[in-house]
Amino acid sequence: MRLRKKNWAEEELLHNPLVISKPKNNINIFLEKINLFKRVEIEIGCGKGQFIKKHAALEADVLFLAVEKYESVLCMATKSFEETDLNNLYFYQGDIIDFLDNQVFFKKIDKIYLNFSDPWPKKKHTKRRLTFPTFLNLYYNLLKDTGKIEQKTDNDKFFEYSLKSFANFKSYEFEDVLLDLHSSENKSRVFKTEYEEKFISMNKPIKYLKLRKR
Amino acid sequence: MRLRKKNWAEEELLHNPLVISKPKNNINIFLEKINLFKRVEIEIGCGKGQFIKKHAALEADVLFLAVEKYESVLCMATKSFEETDLNNLYFYQGDIIDFLDNQVFFKKIDKIYLNFSDPWPKKKHTKRRLTFPTFLNLYYNLLKDTGKIEQKTDNDKFFEYSLKSFANFKSYEFEDVLLDLHSSENKSRVFKTEYEEKFISMNKPIKYLKLRKR
Repeated sequence: MRLRKKNWAEEELLHNPLVISKPKNNINIFLEKINLFKRVEIEIGCGKGQFIKKHAALEADVLFLAVEKYESVLCMATKSFEETDLNNLYFYQGDIIDFLDNQVFFKKIDKIYLNFSDPWPKKKHTKRRLTFPTFLNLYYNLLKDTGKIEQKTDNDKFFEYSLKSFANFKSYEFEDVLLDLHSSENKSRVFKTEYEEKFISMNKPIKYLKLRKR
Repeated sequence: MRLRKKNWAEEELLHNPLVISKPKNNINIFLEKINLFKRVEIEIGCGKGQFIKKHAALEADVLFLAVEKYESVLCMATKSFEETDLNNLYFYQGDIIDFLDNQVFFKKIDKIYLNFSDPWPKKKHTKRRLTFPTFLNLYYNLLKDTGKIEQKTDNDKFFEYSLKSFANFKSYEFEDVLLDLHSSENKSRVFKTEYEEKFISMNKPIKYLKLRKR
């Protein structure tokens, strides 16, 4: 989601204790919390955060981190969260590669969510797709040995590309493939993003892929 | 395709020089032909044979073998073929596992086609699906080192299962995944089976998977 950068957003995130971002950082607060929870799960590109906030509300024993590049978008996510009294959700604002490449998270993550990521349809942008092999390798480093990835998308071409990319990477076991998540009994139906609700209302099937590190 | 067994079919196949079957066999005739052609391709479960006959007609430098369990179905395939003067298509009538397990074909095949195979939707029948790991292993033995598999199906659940099965088998590289073959530019659109034409007329998308032995 692209929005024009707003100065107020940067300012606001800087003073939010739940937000990890440059220049203030806050990573240590999050890292110290990890041991207090059963699992750690992150969403790459959380947008307005409906999906991860529902997870946080229903799974009190899991620590969540919502990663988002765009400040003004993340502000919308943090705003509605501040009204809750949950203590298991943090936000990371910054470049996704910087985040994934940060060794403090290595082998600490139980699950990574990739929801409706930008499909980058042009061939010259293939490397930007969040299922390009470079990213699969970064996820691999972050995940615990039993770690999982769950991907959802409405985009057929991006899904086809992701299936190929994960299969050929060879280090992920395919646990589940669904061409129409919401016609199945899969429990991932419960946690919907804002985009997902829109696509469901348009009768567009949501493609779903679940992988396990091996 | 299940039809009631007809005695005439058995009799007819027995006298057809293009048919490999028990008790007459004819494998040697086929094996001697292999060296005269650039490539060898087989279809597992050819039904009435429209797909493989079109391939044979358009690719004179490729030797084809159409495998079919049901005698009366195979008779329909051979009948319309006898009117042509093509010399690059043979038929194998018999049990598919017997065929796949026959060491005379090992590492001799360039491509295997799995078109609209029975999805065997019940869990207790999983082992009968033609993309169950036992079969993937048999295909692996048959294929040359550069060998390929192409699968088409209209059935979502069978396609999901096949994607998982091939990905987790690890010995096949995913070359192509298409959720709607006939909306793509892929050249496999040209060769349609009888089922495929029916599904296209019903606007049902055909799922397509292409793999390379590694």
